[in-house]
Amino acid sequence: MRVKIGGKIKNFRTIWMKGKTVRMIDQTKLPYKFEIYDSLDFKQTAEAIKKMIVRGAPAIGVAAGFGIAQAILDAPEDRFEEFLKHAVETLRDTRPTAQNLFWTIDRILKIVIKGKNVSEKKKLAVDEANKIADEDVETCKKIGEYGDKLIKDGDKILTHCNAGALATVDYGTALAPIRFAHYEGKKIFVFVDETRPRCQGSRLTAWELSQEGIEHAIIADNAAGYFMQKGEIDLVIVGADRILSNGLTANKIGTYEKAVLAKENEIPFYVAAPTSSFDLKSKEIPIEKRSQDEILYMFGLNDEGKFSRVRIAPKKSQALNPAFDTTPAKFITSFITEKGILKPKDFRKLFK
Amino acid sequence: MRVKIGGKIKNFRTIWMKGKTVRMIDQTKLPYKFEIYDSLDFKQTAEAIKKMIVRGAPAIGVAAGFGIAQAILDAPEDRFEEFLKHAVETLRDTRPTAQNLFWTIDRILKIVIKGKNVSEKKKLAVDEANKIADEDVETCKKIGEYGDKLIKDGDKILTHCNAGALATVDYGTALAPIRFAHYEGKKIFVFVDETRPRCQGSRLTAWELSQEGIEHAIIADNAAGYFMQKGEIDLVIVGADRILSNGLTANKIGTYEKAVLAKENEIPFYVAAPTSSFDLKSKEIPIEKRSQDEILYMFGLNDEGKFSRVRIAPKKSQALNPAFDTTPAKFITSFITEKGILKPKDFRKLFK
Repeated sequence: MRVKIGGKIKNFRTIWMKGKTVRMIDQTKLPYKFEIYDSLDFKQTAEAIKKMIVRGAPAIGVAAGFGIAQAILDAPEDRFEEFLKHAVETLRDTRPTAQNLFWTIDRILKIVIKGKNVSEKKKLAVDEANKIADEDVETCKKIGEYGDKLIKDGDKILTHCNAGALATVDYGTALAPIRFAHYEGKKIFVFVDETRPRCQGSRLTAWELSQEGIEHAIIADNAAGYFMQKGEIDLVIVGADRILSNGLTANKIGTYEKAVLAKENEIPFYVAAPTSSFDLKSKEIPIEKRSQDEILYMFGLNDEGKFSRVRIAPKKSQALNPAFDTTPAKFITSFITEKGILKPKDFRKLFK
Repeated sequence: MRVKIGGKIKNFRTIWMKGKTVRMIDQTKLPYKFEIYDSLDFKQTAEAIKKMIVRGAPAIGVAAGFGIAQAILDAPEDRFEEFLKHAVETLRDTRPTAQNLFWTIDRILKIVIKGKNVSEKKKLAVDEANKIADEDVETCKKIGEYGDKLIKDGDKILTHCNAGALATVDYGTALAPIRFAHYEGKKIFVFVDETRPRCQGSRLTAWELSQEGIEHAIIADNAAGYFMQKGEIDLVIVGADRILSNGLTANKIGTYEKAVLAKENEIPFYVAAPTSSFDLKSKEIPIEKRSQDEILYMFGLNDEGKFSRVRIAPKKSQALNPAFDTTPAKFITSFITEKGILKPKDFRKLFK
């Protein structure tokens, strides 16, 4: 992705591996500071996922892949299996909703088993983790190309949360079509839901769009319906954390609200996601409940330029904080994947 | 309303007049500090409305009434009309959406005209302004009694923004039925939408419910749909800033979203409002656009206990901030007024 540093434009991936170190853009510091966080072992990578230094389903998947590779590199030969098992459990326990986390871990484990000895297993793991990261870039490019066809010159697009380059290795899922439309010279405008409680819209999506020079405005999540009703939104594109065989889609809390409102206002509502976010086996999706402090406080930069928090709520009040919701397929126009624009009936024949 | 101060429970109105001073609970300081703001003349009262020291359609109406009374008390005899005209314009220009503001001003002006001389006019104005405040209390009590009948023991209720005692002189509109149900011993639970951008839900509604000891939890506005979908919300009650003859209701931004979601999930959606919020003449409702800083920053108490703000968004990003939206009648189950539970067809015969 394009990042302006000291007046120059540089290209960055969200996450990559260098030697045994997993390097990632520290998303808890954005949009105030652009900093790279170095994770030295699988435990630090698991912590980075938990603390949302890296977040977004595809990026979480890639991070977990690198974490497994780190664990395999560090595993002592005499208790290789035990060490690896512990690492897998630690990484699987970081966040429950994103399908990509489980998909990546399973994919690497299946490859590693083929290694004839520990040194071969190490090589296989690192190669596969890197391959998954590279594939994610290609996948997002394809999502961008397919999705771009749905965007007309002059369109105003609503997006929720951050399903951008920062939620993947590069380009993004929901933001890939928006980037491609912009690169092609289509004049577009993006309404960015701020996406309480963690404000990934204001903090991350607005930052990515600023870096790209794409016209946008942040709105309160409450205002999306207002702009739809006024006819100011032509289409909605969001990402996904997990998609079931019937099309039921888990994504950032509030996605369901926007989908229902889009249907009511006859606005196309697209979910952009790689096939690694699809879970055709499960019947339901576990929803992560996060700390109530995310609702009771707001985090940001104070007037002295220091990162700090302010309390919004009365001392005695409590909050409930589900991090995701699920949107039934009837509210989703289509799914934008690297295999094309799909409906749930297409899933089984395309994903094996 | 009940306010716990130093371990004791005291009763307060949101706003009242003492001599020539308009006294009001400073709502920009809540929930951190309970402070009374003294406005000494109509200009200060107009500023207090603008700065939202007092807010909520019925309370804005009463404040404007007191402001007119202040202006009449201060008006020099030789240019009484001119002074009053300026005061009326100043007060009318404070906030565009709340109908009560215009209703109260018109009502007082109609009475004042009957005064035979300036001294009689002064008395008439002060008496009428106080009468409007007293009536507001009675009106909210009736709304509470009617609305209470819609709440069953064990109900979980969603409310948006603050349509509580603080938005009126006492009791509230949407919160009056909730208070009455609680006083009667019904076990209820309130989901409080935080209501970005100004968070009147987290700051004011949660504070009122805490003072009353009513069980509640603050949720991100994004999470209301999630809890509806899970069957955890039995009914929704909100207030209104203005209601047209066809039932179209302006209220805090996000109300339309909750109404559409309630209909989708077959949950009754009630609007509680005094008849002074009804505007049977207009065909549309002007929507106030507020400063983008309300979206780009969040205001609250920092860890040192000082009121401060944090910036959430990138430096170059902008925001759009409509303060209200309008909900068509088809999404509203009924209107809870001091004249009973109504449908739009009842409006004309009841309000003259």
